[in-house]
Amino acid sequence: MPRVQITRVLHFNAAHRLFRPDWSDEKNREVFGPCSNPNWHGHNYEIEVTVSGEIDPDTGFVLDLKTLAELVADRLIDDLDHKNLNREVAWLSGVNPTTENLVVAMWNRLGPVLPDGVELTRLVLQETPRNRAEYSGG
Amino acid sequence: MPRVQITRVLHFNAAHRLFRPDWSDEKNREVFGPCSNPNWHGHNYEIEVTVSGEIDPDTGFVLDLKTLAELVADRLIDDLDHKNLNREVAWLSGVNPTTENLVVAMWNRLGPVLPDGVELTRLVLQETPRNRAEYSGG
Amino acid sequence: MPRVQITRVLHFNAAHRLFRPDWSDEKNREVFGPCSNPNWHGHNYEIEVTVSGEIDPDTGFVLDLKTLAELVADRLIDDLDHKNLNREVAWLSGVNPTTENLVVAMWNRLGPVLPDGVELTRLVLQETPRNRAEYSGG
Amino acid sequence: MPRVQITRVLHFNAAHRLFRPDWSDEKNREVFGPCSNPNWHGHNYEIEVTVSGEIDPDTGFVLDLKTLAELVADRLIDDLDHKNLNREVAWLSGVNPTTENLVVAMWNRLGPVLPDGVELTRLVLQETPRNRAEYSGG
Amino acid sequence: MPRVQITRVLHFNAAHRLFRPDWSDEKNREVFGPCSNPNWHGHNYEIEVTVSGEIDPDTGFVLDLKTLAELVADRLIDDLDHKNLNREVAWLSGVNPTTENLVVAMWNRLGPVLPDGVELTRLVLQETPRNRAEYSGG
Amino acid sequence: MPRVQITRVLHFNAAHRLFRPDWSDEKNREVFGPCSNPNWHGHNYEIEVTVSGEIDPDTGFVLDLKTLAELVADRLIDDLDHKNLNREVAWLSGVNPTTENLVVAMWNRLGPVLPDGVELTRLVLQETPRNRAEYSGG
Repeated sequence: MPRVQITRVLHFNAAHRLFRPDWSDEKNREVFGPCSNPNWHGHNYEIEVTVSGEIDPDTGFVLDLKTLAELVADRLIDDLDHKNLNREVAWLSGVNPTTENLVVAMWNRLGPVLPDGVELTRLVLQETPRNRAEYSGG
Repeated sequence: MPRVQITRVLHFNAAHRLFRPDWSDEKNREVFGPCSNPNWHGHNYEIEVTVSGEIDPDTGFVLDLKTLAELVADRLIDDLDHKNLNREVAWLSGVNPTTENLVVAMWNRLGPVLPDGVELTRLVLQETPRNRAEYSGG
Repeated sequence: MPRVQITRVLHFNAAHRLFRPDWSDEKNREVFGPCSNPNWHGHNYEIEVTVSGEIDPDTGFVLDLKTLAELVADRLIDDLDHKNLNREVAWLSGVNPTTENLVVAMWNRLGPVLPDGVELTRLVLQETPRNRAEYSGG
Repeated sequence: MPRVQITRVLHFNAAHRLFRPDWSDEKNREVFGPCSNPNWHGHNYEIEVTVSGEIDPDTGFVLDLKTLAELVADRLIDDLDHKNLNREVAWLSGVNPTTENLVVAMWNRLGPVLPDGVELTRLVLQETPRNRAEYSGG
Repeated sequence: MPRVQITRVLHFNAAHRLFRPDWSDEKNREVFGPCSNPNWHGHNYEIEVTVSGEIDPDTGFVLDLKTLAELVADRLIDDLDHKNLNREVAWLSGVNPTTENLVVAMWNRLGPVLPDGVELTRLVLQETPRNRAEYSGG
Repeated sequence: MPRVQITRVLHFNAAHRLFRPDWSDEKNREVFGPCSNPNWHGHNYEIEVTVSGEIDPDTGFVLDLKTLAELVADRLIDDLDHKNLNREVAWLSGVNPTTENLVVAMWNRLGPVLPDGVELTRLVLQETPRNRAEYSGG
């Protein structure tokens, strides 16, 4: 059967700041600029989850997108939506929430729970319509 | 000369929570749900500023969009971008930052500084691609 | 209190055909072209629901968008999504499902259930990114 | 019958410069900045044409969008697409092609050819995703 | 000469249902949910066709996008637009029209007619703005 | 450290024509159609710049997007915005400005100035929302 990629797009809104606790406020501001505001700022994040696999000849699906959406909600969105990414997400503890670090953490959290035969291929995290990070493992 | 409306679209990212200090945490959570998270959340806000006036026969402009963009930056965006809307914006002090309250406060702040002959006609504030508030005065 | 408009955007997918049962197939095809295909075609409809009212000084809301979304789901989306607009929607019975007729029928169905003090101001139904109909009553 | 607004969105690509032949190059550059480049620049213009009228009880249309699209192509797009707006469009002769002036000229050209009972209600000309002009006559 | 990818985006509207004739209605409903509605539903499909090749030093084109658009119209869009994907498309006969199955069938239909030296690289079929399938052969 | 791709999206507006000076006007028109208009036409170009590298453990960045945006402005946008691509850009001299040729020229101009450890991975140049070219070197 042909191998196809399917993509589901999801949203969450969150607060964050770019910040290293082992740096002074001055150093944080110098490196991260207004993104380091101690009073936080936030984004409408958009995440594109792409998985690949052979088409199941019974269903015509690589994976039912409803199943994929539920997995992503359970592992990612429910923990992230309307939250503070520096403070409230257990699996982001100690992570400076740059778009790069976030997309890798999401990959590590989502990849292992996909069903057999379905592979996480690409994760795109959009922080703003102008800025995004993309990870394919490795 | 014909009266025309011109619109400039601008962005800012900010943190906020829906919250009344005179209500208990329980009451805030009951009314505002996850939008009341004490650890904040945030948005990529998009604002559409529409002004109207007669076309200036000299320039063919109602108002130079560069001028409009500078006024909006000076009066709104510079104060709002990468900020906490509950804590850091003097002219939002005491305002519960719902989209409705924000768009009215922005109107009151921008309207008075427009040049003679140019009228603020409509302000649309988009909190997410699904939710927005629109104000035309009154 | 200021009167503000708030807008919620929602989606549904549906099949339809433009068709009058009292016309011959030839006449239907002549007037409605490929939109009259007896085997149906369909769209990702997008609907923008705009209501207006005074801001409630307690909440800062004209209407909680969650409440609005639930009303629209209950009165419109649940009946329309993944359905055949010619055959399966009781309140569209006998209606030729042009974008114009649909937007008026939706208006008549949604308007009466809005809470006191909140008025349905505008309904925009987008059939494709190029085509839409807008109704404000009257 | 209810009065409904229908909108058709169309595109054209064109070159232009903001320029008054009775001004010096310096004056043009001072007022219009890089938009006055004598070697031209250009845009993907997007135009939203909104007409209103009663729904025709025979067809369920205010106006067949195919008819509207043909009128707009014939009166506007065919003259504008892949053209130089300062030099090649007879009905823009002597017009400084600001977005404001363009939208009024388009209104004057399209309004008179609409069928009886259908009224041109709004014309929105988008020069970039950030900048647009809107005209409703008057 | 450098190898470049060029992409053309096209649309079609169609009705479909997810359905296997060898399964009971109950089984179809259980597996495919509302997508299996016997009265059909539909979508505004968007298709991105990406081809790659060396830039032709005479024209500066990998392939004239007008030529590409005509090939896609002739092989795909003319057969699919305003049609029922389960019933009316000869080359989809017997295919359960999931996004995955559709994108593979389109690939098989379009690939062989591309000119020498131009290779079909990627086909993305978007069923809704949230859901899409992507195929690169193999 | 994981290798991640980050993307920055930027805009410029420009005039151009498809044209070979060693061909007759007739030949140019025959091959390039209205895109060869001697009076020019233009576009709102959108460019997506994707770079990849290991995440810097100090900052959590592959590359500060502010740095990337400044490099792209300095090497590309400042030379291209509000310009005539056939006449005014030194590093496009002698280049027929098809989207394919432009994206390769931009690649050659941007690639060499990226910091050590950061690699230019993909450049996507969108001429219109329907047409784009993509280059990854080679």
